[in-house]
Amino acid sequence: MSSSSAAPGRGEKAEAVAAKPPMREALVAAAFQLFLERGYEQTTVDDIVALAGVGRRSFFRYFPSKEDVVFPDHERCLADMTAFLGASGEEHEPVQRVCDAARLVLRMYAENPTFSVQRYRLTKQVPGLRAYELSVVWRYERALAEYLRRRFAGRRDGTLRADVIAAAVVAAHNNALRSWLRSDGQGDATAAVDHALGYAQSSFGVAPAPRSADEAADDQAEDVVVVVSRRGAPLWRVVQEIETTLGRD
Amino acid sequence: MSSSSAAPGRGEKAEAVAAKPPMREALVAAAFQLFLERGYEQTTVDDIVALAGVGRRSFFRYFPSKEDVVFPDHERCLADMTAFLGASGEEHEPVQRVCDAARLVLRMYAENPTFSVQRYRLTKQVPGLRAYELSVVWRYERALAEYLRRRFAGRRDGTLRADVIAAAVVAAHNNALRSWLRSDGQGDATAAVDHALGYAQSSFGVAPAPRSADEAADDQAEDVVVVVSRRGAPLWRVVQEIETTLGRD
Repeated sequence: MSSSSAAPGRGEKAEAVAAKPPMREALVAAAFQLFLERGYEQTTVDDIVALAGVGRRSFFRYFPSKEDVVFPDHERCLADMTAFLGASGEEHEPVQRVCDAARLVLRMYAENPTFSVQRYRLTKQVPGLRAYELSVVWRYERALAEYLRRRFAGRRDGTLRADVIAAAVVAAHNNALRSWLRSDGQGDATAAVDHALGYAQSSFGVAPAPRSADEAADDQAEDVVVVVSRRGAPLWRVVQEIETTLGRD
Repeated sequence: MSSSSAAPGRGEKAEAVAAKPPMREALVAAAFQLFLERGYEQTTVDDIVALAGVGRRSFFRYFPSKEDVVFPDHERCLADMTAFLGASGEEHEPVQRVCDAARLVLRMYAENPTFSVQRYRLTKQVPGLRAYELSVVWRYERALAEYLRRRFAGRRDGTLRADVIAAAVVAAHNNALRSWLRSDGQGDATAAVDHALGYAQSSFGVAPAPRSADEAADDQAEDVVVVVSRRGAPLWRVVQEIETTLGRD
């Protein structure tokens, strides 16, 4: 479970940690060994540092609390996401960009499936960890929403659109991520997340980047469909007519 | 702040509480008086029961913890929402139904603007209350998602659609609710939430129920627009073409 904690070159926090990887990794490894053996609540920070062979102050140098050792990489991932969104330009389609930002979270989980599945099971069992995870998800969602609010500034319903799209993207990502975690990390998490994010994107009228030869072939089809609608019709009704014409559900 | 706690005929929990409204209301009133005077963290349960003139056991009969007294009506509202969704039939359009369920939350806040605004300010200041609120929002979102999962059972991407739509509806509702709370409860919260939920609904191809004479007039317009598209075109691209044709942004 150490590789994900010490991945180099992923922003300042990762590099600061990379200077002393062994102790941080040893603490995470000791903590999870004890959580799995005797349960999260029954494990104290003293137990963890005893097994890792370090002092209490070393633990708290890396982790503000026992909960934080369960999610050792989220701060780095949040920093990566913020940097990624901050480096965006006008040339980036905003909804595509937040989907790509969400993929950073998937990548963190997929880097170490065994650890991610263990943590998923642990989190489901401990209400305090579930609350902690909700606060982490909320911070990701706010990072995406703040970026979209900037991009939509001055547009009608800009903050509303930003908040709704950010929530939809996070929900789509997490739907696919949780399915993958429930399957014990089997299957292609990237493909599942791409599919889920594609659904979210298409809901907001944005093109998912082509992901497969089949989809690219779809773009080449030359059949023609004609839809006739009243000009004053609300957009949702036009979309319904088109869906019916195209034979989508 | 008492009217919302004792509103009768709103499900079992409300009626059970309605049998002894004065003590529960007195505890909420005492708690908020102290939270506002000396701060949330500096107020103990002992302080609250001393001011309300009751014993500690009375407090814990109504509220499992000090945090729960800050959100005295969410359990009732969650029960109302679950009952409302459980009473749905096939005749209810699912996305419209979850929007109507979300309106139950708005109604609870709008019943007592002064109390809602006080709580909003308090929650922003106290991280523990913010975490509590996130867990409450999560439970609302799961109630909506579980209902949609049942309605979408057997449909392609049913759970994905359910989770994404539930998240979008909650985000739209909360965007409007927070704007109203930030404005100190001024303005028409119901109209703002209707508008926000209408955006979420239209994103998923569902008709918002008509809310105004103008919108009804829109439906009567008889101009015609013709859109020509390749049959194989992805839906998002067809929607983009239509939006351009109709002159929407």
